Amino acid sequence: MALVVQKFGGSSVADAASIKRVAKRIAETKRMGNDVVVVVSAMGDTTDELIDLAEEVTTKPPSREMDILLTAGERISMALLAMAVTEEGIEAHAYTGQQAGLLTDDKYGQASILGIIPERILRTIKDGAVAIVAGFQGVNSQNDVTTLGRGGSDTTAVAFAAALHADSCEIYTDVDGVFSADPRVVPAAGHVALMTYEETLELAAHGAKVLHLRAVEFARKFNVPLHVRSSFSNKEGTWIVSENLSQQKAMEAPVITGVAHDRSQSKISIVGVPDVPGAASKIFAAVGRADGNIDMIVQNTALSTPGQSNISFTVPRVQLDTVVEKLRADRSDLGIKEIQVTEEIGILSIVGAGMRSHSGVSAKLFTALAELGANIDMISTSEIRISVVVAPDVLESAARAVHTAFGLDQESDAIVYGGTGR
Amino acid sequence: MALVVQKFGGSSVADAASIKRVAKRIAETKRMGNDVVVVVSAMGDTTDELIDLAEEVTTKPPSREMDILLTAGERISMALLAMAVTEEGIEAHAYTGQQAGLLTDDKYGQASILGIIPERILRTIKDGAVAIVAGFQGVNSQNDVTTLGRGGSDTTAVAFAAALHADSCEIYTDVDGVFSADPRVVPAAGHVALMTYEETLELAAHGAKVLHLRAVEFARKFNVPLHVRSSFSNKEGTWIVSENLSQQKAMEAPVITGVAHDRSQSKISIVGVPDVPGAASKIFAAVGRADGNIDMIVQNTALSTPGQSNISFTVPRVQLDTVVEKLRADRSDLGIKEIQVTEEIGILSIVGAGMRSHSGVSAKLFTALAELGANIDMISTSEIRISVVVAPDVLESAARAVHTAFGLDQESDAIVYGGTGR
Repeated sequence: MALVVQKFGGSSVADAASIKRVAKRIAETKRMGNDVVVVVSAMGDTTDELIDLAEEVTTKPPSREMDILLTAGERISMALLAMAVTEEGIEAHAYTGQQAGLLTDDKYGQASILGIIPERILRTIKDGAVAIVAGFQGVNSQNDVTTLGRGGSDTTAVAFAAALHADSCEIYTDVDGVFSADPRVVPAAGHVALMTYEETLELAAHGAKVLHLRAVEFARKFNVPLHVRSSFSNKEGTWIVSENLSQQKAMEAPVITGVAHDRSQSKISIVGVPDVPGAASKIFAAVGRADGNIDMIVQNTALSTPGQSNISFTVPRVQLDTVVEKLRADRSDLGIKEIQVTEEIGILSIVGAGMRSHSGVSAKLFTALAELGANIDMISTSEIRISVVVAPDVLESAARAVHTAFGLDQESDAIVYGGTGR
Repeated sequence: MALVVQKFGGSSVADAASIKRVAKRIAETKRMGNDVVVVVSAMGDTTDELIDLAEEVTTKPPSREMDILLTAGERISMALLAMAVTEEGIEAHAYTGQQAGLLTDDKYGQASILGIIPERILRTIKDGAVAIVAGFQGVNSQNDVTTLGRGGSDTTAVAFAAALHADSCEIYTDVDGVFSADPRVVPAAGHVALMTYEETLELAAHGAKVLHLRAVEFARKFNVPLHVRSSFSNKEGTWIVSENLSQQKAMEAPVITGVAHDRSQSKISIVGVPDVPGAASKIFAAVGRADGNIDMIVQNTALSTPGQSNISFTVPRVQLDTVVEKLRADRSDLGIKEIQVTEEIGILSIVGAGMRSHSGVSAKLFTALAELGANIDMISTSEIRISVVVAPDVLESAARAVHTAFGLDQESDAIVYGGTGR
């Protein structure tokens, strides 16, 4: 008998019919002899509708009241889901974050989990019932309701799985798991059976809509095996586990696990940076003051102008204007000559823990890109990732070519590639 | 400086525009130097919509989860109202029943208030802010959410007014207060400036849609002055106070405060009841077992059949079938000959504390009815009320005639006569 935490996002409980379908799955899991704790998001668009209501009455909603308002969404879905599971003949009780013992700090709208006192949930499963917990919410030390921000429901599920020492945490979505690439761009992409937390984090950080970074980091920290799977089928989805476990399970893992592409970044090139110690540091301090998140950096000394270098880096496009404005304002302080901006760039990343023990990975990548005639503008790497900046118009064909080159192509039945809700 | 509890029902906060209007009134009350605690119902039809959702997923919703579900309605309205008051430049914080310290027993769906621990609300008003409290809900000793059932929000407001020793409890509605009769039936009905708890209870119990009995009983028990008034105007509404206070305030109160009519009752006549001790008692015990609420009873010995009497009584029409079925089943046990049913009857009641000290009230009533040619079928009285059963087709004209006879006619600007929500 296992203890399973199951998380269902908003699209899985969008209406009464969906809630009944999810209830059947929960009941099945319970009847198979498992203890089941369920974490559920608000139904469909409920949260957006509540935000719209708030905007109708105020231009600057107080954050405490905003969190109370938004948590009404999960209160509704958890109660309905508990009713639907009860209707399936399985005893089920619904708990708010406060009732379930999820304690947070005071940062309304983006609270951090301080801990879980799972007594009530433990008692519920000990009594043979299913515990349905509202995702995305907790309570602070003043007994005020807080919300966890983006990825909050996934994180809630992982946190309960950790606190309850669950055997696994199932994250239900509308596709069969994590894919080796975005199937809308790479039709041959297939679902990945097994990957590590680190691979998942790298893919998510580089444009793949997998799981929220935060939930994966939480799972890695507490070593919670994640199972990302479809709420529409009983197929095995993608298991996300520690590297140790991954190596035990998959003797011959592919070198590359996935290909991610990202169109949301821009490039800033600074020409004529004084080639003296501290010059780059000053520039990135200025970017930091503008709250810019830098992903890739390339520095090279311009041979034509001795004593000066050029620095290029990428920032999310939404931050581009603020960062450039800041750099322009500090231009004379920083001693830089010129700021060039490339608003649209493509970033292609390959991720795989197997990269560590295999040689020739970058050669294979560059060859595939060269055969396509794609020019590589910047390169950055981590232990398990290589990212390249290419022109946005070749990004998708590059993704397909690289996917093929690394032998990842499968016959796929995936149609839509979606996120997991909040 | 006074402490005022204000209660707004669902129709007063039906949409964003209404919420903003209510917020302006709260802000005004606060700016006038008062401490303000607000109790609010769910927006418009929210509660009904949530019940519909529950019925879509289950045929027999568990009561604990039903209460969690329904309380989402007030959670939304209280948060939005706090935002709207804040937008008016007045600090405001929203509290659930649990946060506000409203403790109840375990009877989900119709919980009774055990007590209020108003520390947090007191701290809020001491800090100069407005406290917005969710109506209709509390928490039991297991930290589970309960709802108070019909009249729950009115009762919540009165309970907080009692716990906080408020100077008054304002119940906002869509009319100018309590009327001397239903203006849809008696166009000359005007709003009553002052009445006692007892008068209000008698009127409410006999068909007038005034306030929920429960809230008035609570107010009487804790001597909370109620002020029923319109959320659309600044006019004084109806004050409902203790008899002592009422006598001080109104030196020359009218003999009759209001006329109520009721079409929701039916009459059961039992012919041939053995004229022996205990016969009636057996009959009413049987009615009690069928959960019948008896209002009026008339017994008379049938001269034509010595040794037997006839008993007539009224029960709510919704209970008629159950009660009659029970009586038929026990017919031989009860030793009764025949059961006659009059499904549709009219009950006209006049209520007034002044009745105690004035003679000729019943004479005036019977004269007015006689002039109309209305036949009186049954009569029952309390210290401050006289009720008569008349044919349903003369009920409305009787109400008008009696209203006129007791000098209650006013020029009224009321158009709709409504309740106060839940």
